[in-house]
Amino acid sequence: MKKKIALARGDGIGPEVVAEGIKIMKTLQKYSDYQFEFVETPLGGQVLIDTGTNLPQKSFDQMKKCDAILFGAIGLPNLPLGAAESAISKLRQGLDLYVNLRPIKLYESLRDKCPLKEEYIQNGIDMTIIRENTEGLYAKIGTEVSDNKVINKMIYTRNSVERIIKYAFEYAKKKGNSEIISVDKANLLECSQFWREIYLEIGKKYQDIKQTNFYIDAFCQWLIRRPYSVQTVVTENMFGDIISDEAAYLIGSLGMAASGNINPGKVSMYEPIHGSAPDIAGKDIANPIGTILSVKLMIEESFGEKFYGDLIENAVELSLEQGRTIDILPKNDLNQGKLKTLTTNGMG
Amino acid sequence: MKKKIALARGDGIGPEVVAEGIKIMKTLQKYSDYQFEFVETPLGGQVLIDTGTNLPQKSFDQMKKCDAILFGAIGLPNLPLGAAESAISKLRQGLDLYVNLRPIKLYESLRDKCPLKEEYIQNGIDMTIIRENTEGLYAKIGTEVSDNKVINKMIYTRNSVERIIKYAFEYAKKKGNSEIISVDKANLLECSQFWREIYLEIGKKYQDIKQTNFYIDAFCQWLIRRPYSVQTVVTENMFGDIISDEAAYLIGSLGMAASGNINPGKVSMYEPIHGSAPDIAGKDIANPIGTILSVKLMIEESFGEKFYGDLIENAVELSLEQGRTIDILPKNDLNQGKLKTLTTNGMG
Ligand SMILES: CC(C)[C@H](C(=O)O)[C@@H](O)C(=O)O
Ligand SMILES: CC(C)[C@H](C(=O)O)[C@@H](O)C(=O)O
Repeated sequence: MKKKIALARGDGIGPEVVAEGIKIMKTLQKYSDYQFEFVETPLGGQVLIDTGTNLPQKSFDQMKKCDAILFGAIGLPNLPLGAAESAISKLRQGLDLYVNLRPIKLYESLRDKCPLKEEYIQNGIDMTIIRENTEGLYAKIGTEVSDNKVINKMIYTRNSVERIIKYAFEYAKKKGNSEIISVDKANLLECSQFWREIYLEIGKKYQDIKQTNFYIDAFCQWLIRRPYSVQTVVTENMFGDIISDEAAYLIGSLGMAASGNINPGKVSMYEPIHGSAPDIAGKDIANPIGTILSVKLMIEESFGEKFYGDLIENAVELSLEQGRTIDILPKNDLNQGKLKTLTTNGMG
Repeated sequence: MKKKIALARGDGIGPEVVAEGIKIMKTLQKYSDYQFEFVETPLGGQVLIDTGTNLPQKSFDQMKKCDAILFGAIGLPNLPLGAAESAISKLRQGLDLYVNLRPIKLYESLRDKCPLKEEYIQNGIDMTIIRENTEGLYAKIGTEVSDNKVINKMIYTRNSVERIIKYAFEYAKKKGNSEIISVDKANLLECSQFWREIYLEIGKKYQDIKQTNFYIDAFCQWLIRRPYSVQTVVTENMFGDIISDEAAYLIGSLGMAASGNINPGKVSMYEPIHGSAPDIAGKDIANPIGTILSVKLMIEESFGEKFYGDLIENAVELSLEQGRTIDILPKNDLNQGKLKTLTTNGMG
């Protein structure tokens, strides 16, 4: 099987971790009938500085012709706020990647790196956060900026809410989940009431799955109270951004977390959820597992190959027993400085 | 000193916990020259059922004539989403209570109830979250609801952003903090960029205090990574709602957390941050500490009496050594069911 993969290496540690992802694909190629062709599609902060745009039209056009995109990380210090990062939103919206799939799994050998006490981990943490990826406050329509007043609009449309909720129910069903959780703020927002109505309506077809609702504030608490009980979570764009960052730290390091920006059946984009961490770039210490697990997601979600996905995951688990990158070293405190560095994306 | 206190007992466990708050004030009266007069100002879900409004005009008018308000909790099952709770927003907006002050302190004797491992607690958790309390998505201006599309507006005005940030800097200064953290989403929202500009501008006058910025997603992670390092946090309305609920669980139980809805120098409202928990109402098992510490806040913030505030806090610490309510019993797992019940406010 021939597969054309766009490489959006990006800034900071992006290129390093993508290089590790490529190795995994090349290995897979040896033991399967996959044949990967790689296409360079530059984007991000350095590209912005060099060319004036963070997402050149040529890169975008190339991506559209590929079978999937492997994305590293973008962002450089000293650029205006969001100047590099907006390329991600452009891709999510431009390719209509309406699902942001974020599996959060604590590997047994990393239990010591979970910040929670054992009684809060129990049988382990293994949840998937499904985030709506095109709307809400990210739609950026009708923003009003004046000297003394600024307005951002949170927008939900029926079609977008329906498709993400359907996707989530189908996902929970496929996984054999006994429960699905929807996160909103329906005691305040009409957007959330709209969301909840649609969730309840679609839920009627999935009566075997227990359907729970949480407000976003209560759910951020739930994540540190009963994380082991959470299976599939579906939520809107910004709430998903928030809870997936919180949840990602439960598995030891942001460096472990993978994600897929997906439009089922169309070209989709896979990315580690850590950022570009420019201060440790080029030192060969970045954790590549988030990217490697993103390749796993690509193989499973875009190419439908559960078997090879499992193989990659096994390899990750094995390698964790043989050694660890600095962000997940057993002795937490020795490495605070570095740890902070590796996962500081998002700090201003 | 005569002080007139409005009692907004509310629903569920609200009346029980307010009763405990009153005991504290009556005790204080014995040992000081305070003289408290209590005025009943009914509001909430039951009042909505009985009278058609969750905040009768008479209650509101009475409150305005008081020196402070002690609020229990509101909300009843089977009411429409937010039908009872909107009374809180009406009060925050109606009395222009622009500061939501939420101290988060882990008492030494409750270290075992913090879900985090010891190395994440270190010298202890003692932070204050200062939440803007009137604007953002809570302004509820210009909401658009149609069959296929719903819009909520997030609104920031210069005056509101300025006053909350000034308040926060003054607070941090008074506390002798070495750092202040502002939480926003400036890589996405123009509202946040506006917020950050004002923060940086006002910060120029407080060069002794280190000024840090976090994105909301990264900060929800930071709360479980380095909570012991966090001192004063300032943020907008919904972000504050989210992080204060997450942070509240770090101190053992939502039942421990107090808050003040404050307009300095004007009538302000103090409330435990837990909800009405109707399922345990009337069983005499609700944790009154959130309310007792809200009385402490009232004495300090509205009446300027740090000495008596400290006395109340000492009493709480002493009583924790003598016994605990069910939500903070040492053996976590024995009481999962009840624990869940006590703090379920916010689950749909
Ligand atoms: C970089 C930023 C705009 C982005 C987001 O908010 O979606 C990031 O936090 C993410 O989660 O992918
Ligand atoms: C009840 C609800 C509307 C309220 C809020 O969102 O502000 C609550 O969560 C709080 O934090 O006081």
